[in-house]
Amino acid sequence: MEELPPALTHFDAEGRAVMVDVGAKPETARQAIARGRIVMAPSTLDRIREGQMAKGDVLAVARIAGIMAAKRTADLIPLCHPLMLSKVTVDLTPAAPDAVEIEAVVALNGRTGVEMEALTAVTVAALTVYDMCKAVDRSMRIEAVRLSHKSGGKSGTYEAG
Amino acid sequence: MEELPPALTHFDAEGRAVMVDVGAKPETARQAIARGRIVMAPSTLDRIREGQMAKGDVLAVARIAGIMAAKRTADLIPLCHPLMLSKVTVDLTPAAPDAVEIEAVVALNGRTGVEMEALTAVTVAALTVYDMCKAVDRSMRIEAVRLSHKSGGKSGTYEAG
Amino acid sequence: MEELPPALTHFDAEGRAVMVDVGAKPETARQAIARGRIVMAPSTLDRIREGQMAKGDVLAVARIAGIMAAKRTADLIPLCHPLMLSKVTVDLTPAAPDAVEIEAVVALNGRTGVEMEALTAVTVAALTVYDMCKAVDRSMRIEAVRLSHKSGGKSGTYEAG
Amino acid sequence: MEELPPALTHFDAEGRAVMVDVGAKPETARQAIARGRIVMAPSTLDRIREGQMAKGDVLAVARIAGIMAAKRTADLIPLCHPLMLSKVTVDLTPAAPDAVEIEAVVALNGRTGVEMEALTAVTVAALTVYDMCKAVDRSMRIEAVRLSHKSGGKSGTYEAG
Amino acid sequence: MEELPPALTHFDAEGRAVMVDVGAKPETARQAIARGRIVMAPSTLDRIREGQMAKGDVLAVARIAGIMAAKRTADLIPLCHPLMLSKVTVDLTPAAPDAVEIEAVVALNGRTGVEMEALTAVTVAALTVYDMCKAVDRSMRIEAVRLSHKSGGKSGTYEAG
Amino acid sequence: MEELPPALTHFDAEGRAVMVDVGAKPETARQAIARGRIVMAPSTLDRIREGQMAKGDVLAVARIAGIMAAKRTADLIPLCHPLMLSKVTVDLTPAAPDAVEIEAVVALNGRTGVEMEALTAVTVAALTVYDMCKAVDRSMRIEAVRLSHKSGGKSGTYEAG
Repeated sequence: MEELPPALTHFDAEGRAVMVDVGAKPETARQAIARGRIVMAPSTLDRIREGQMAKGDVLAVARIAGIMAAKRTADLIPLCHPLMLSKVTVDLTPAAPDAVEIEAVVALNGRTGVEMEALTAVTVAALTVYDMCKAVDRSMRIEAVRLSHKSGGKSGTYEAG
Repeated sequence: MEELPPALTHFDAEGRAVMVDVGAKPETARQAIARGRIVMAPSTLDRIREGQMAKGDVLAVARIAGIMAAKRTADLIPLCHPLMLSKVTVDLTPAAPDAVEIEAVVALNGRTGVEMEALTAVTVAALTVYDMCKAVDRSMRIEAVRLSHKSGGKSGTYEAG
Repeated sequence: MEELPPALTHFDAEGRAVMVDVGAKPETARQAIARGRIVMAPSTLDRIREGQMAKGDVLAVARIAGIMAAKRTADLIPLCHPLMLSKVTVDLTPAAPDAVEIEAVVALNGRTGVEMEALTAVTVAALTVYDMCKAVDRSMRIEAVRLSHKSGGKSGTYEAG
Repeated sequence: MEELPPALTHFDAEGRAVMVDVGAKPETARQAIARGRIVMAPSTLDRIREGQMAKGDVLAVARIAGIMAAKRTADLIPLCHPLMLSKVTVDLTPAAPDAVEIEAVVALNGRTGVEMEALTAVTVAALTVYDMCKAVDRSMRIEAVRLSHKSGGKSGTYEAG
Repeated sequence: MEELPPALTHFDAEGRAVMVDVGAKPETARQAIARGRIVMAPSTLDRIREGQMAKGDVLAVARIAGIMAAKRTADLIPLCHPLMLSKVTVDLTPAAPDAVEIEAVVALNGRTGVEMEALTAVTVAALTVYDMCKAVDRSMRIEAVRLSHKSGGKSGTYEAG
Repeated sequence: MEELPPALTHFDAEGRAVMVDVGAKPETARQAIARGRIVMAPSTLDRIREGQMAKGDVLAVARIAGIMAAKRTADLIPLCHPLMLSKVTVDLTPAAPDAVEIEAVVALNGRTGVEMEALTAVTVAALTVYDMCKAVDRSMRIEAVRLSHKSGGKSGTYEAG
């Protein structure tokens, strides 16, 4: 018989959703890295790369959108704590023949981790690529959005396998 | 030699990002359906399903987060038009043994499509599932976020293949 | 045996929360009036009235906060539709010896009513009075926040008894 | 002749509204509890309780709305400081025959109190109940929203009488 | 003796701030153009122009910030109506030897003008240039932010002299 | 030949926009003062001053808008860090015959400066004056928005010349 995992947080003893108390945790330096990818027609990727050479750069707009979204995470995810992020970077890299790889790095000196901020930055950057290219390619897909690395805090360092 | 697709919108003749003018388009009834999935350990899915029977329902919180995010799309995606959505639904369905399937339906009487609103609802619902289960499973992945259906407007009906 | 009221909206046939579809409703002129009151020590009301004569006007700040909050209603109330309000007024009137009466009027040409916008304006105006006076009176109470009048739309005119 | 209370804060020496300087205050553990109630027809309360047993749970949606609103307090109340809340819980309890009682608990390690965040959570949770039940009962009223408890900071502990 | 101008709008008969009723106005095509300038050291402008040739483009980031800010105008300016903008463009042009000229064009089919949206886009674009260059030049100044053109609506076309 | 200034921050080694890491900076008491001016017809200034004596006070509304905008700075300026401001004041002073002078003071105990918050407060206060007076004077101009003073942090005190 399979054993259940430890109880989900974000619920109190009676099973009601709560924003858990992190007030007793020490402030430590924390970092999270998230990754994802948006897959598209090869001709769409060609078009994005063309733009990079001109001034109209899809990836630059998506980078800004991802950074701004990281700062809005607590507005979007109901039980996330508001956090004073100390660093956000988002990188989008064409991966021939048919994808753009996205990576976000978020850091904080604080009482709770920043993985949701990194994941939010990746997904909003991907959505922005979709928005700017949808007139030429409606079949793009966002794939493999996941936590890649996490450090700081009691639970220690996590590296995706 | 492969031919390039038609030019990306969201850029003017000199390649600068713009929010394109939709003022001359007629108001029509428009709908978009987006889908995606969050993949997890089977034991995490068991835990979510347990909660459904109690009051602590991960999927209910994620549904609300997705609906609210659809309304914030123009705040998040730089070149999206602000829209008065007339309907948003988000459904999350456990898909044994190891995933939750997510579908968002968004409708509008307006001058531009609502695919970004539907895609945003799906991704924020998925991120909320991640947030609420991350204490027991950090290796969850968001996969296959895509437009499934789009109707209304000049470009006609689109159905994902 | 008491009969149950008609089913709640905001839920689909399977009982899941949704933002209901108003796309088929006609656009009509709609108006809502909400009222409420914040009760306080008589000496606190004296202090507020003093300020009205000087430049530091608690009620003027609360009026602005109420108007701005009406515009944020769809961000705060999960299943409210985003609306393009055509008018918002908020009035705060000292009611001797121990209360400030608050009334908000909101209007719209649109497909759904504006009672939530009027109620949100009243409560945020009341909270702002609390905030600005709490250093002298922590025992203030917000009371009797209710819909006073509603017109326009299929359900016709409502007047509180 | 009645004596006036101490001057209101949030105003400078010339009576102009300001966000007061809390930079010199020490960071301490602070907590606030606010309470309120929404009064309704007994048949409306019956309907809400029915939903609790099914998946469509008015009170669960209102709880999420209240938690999210606590995080938006500084956006809504003009002179509130932005704060990094460490905990938010909102509980809604049916109180037969005709009311739902609401309690919010907010905590922070910081330089200023969190009573406005707790009061905002209570009122937005109450407004959400109103929104979800208004199709069956327009005469609901929000009553008795007040600070119940406050601890931490220079002014010491407050308990409502 | 100088005659006073017509009464300010945004106030009711008793002099209280209101969001004026535009519900009776017809929907018409409206456009506004605003302009402004940020003045800086010539060496700062050189540095910005250098970036334009590489990927790090201050002006591209400022353009996106200006477009996004136009959509947030009703959140920022207390008595502005929420509007569904149909078009926003922001252009930033180096003006040797020591300035960047900014122009925003905003359009709408609606009941009220969009001059505030255009002015907000210009100022936030200018602030973003300041932010990105402040490490090398703290003495930059935002100058000459004004309405340049306005058309549509009852008051007719306005062209700055 | 003129030498270029030190590299712009907000870009990484490859010239991509980033939110720079301030996590290693110590928390210090920081303050910034920004100033600006809105120039108008003398009769418009007369009208504003009239209102100051009555209840309809353009400058009081603009002050509140400026304070609230300071708290939204990180939402508006893409690469600004979210900050927990400890103080915001905004003053608007009629400057006969044809201008209103605006000054904002912002303070923080934190890891990065608050000049963007002070500049944002000044510009949004000026935009609010424009909004409230535009019915009588479309030719108002926002001028001379600049940093006046900055203290705290590694770079030391700055006073505008």
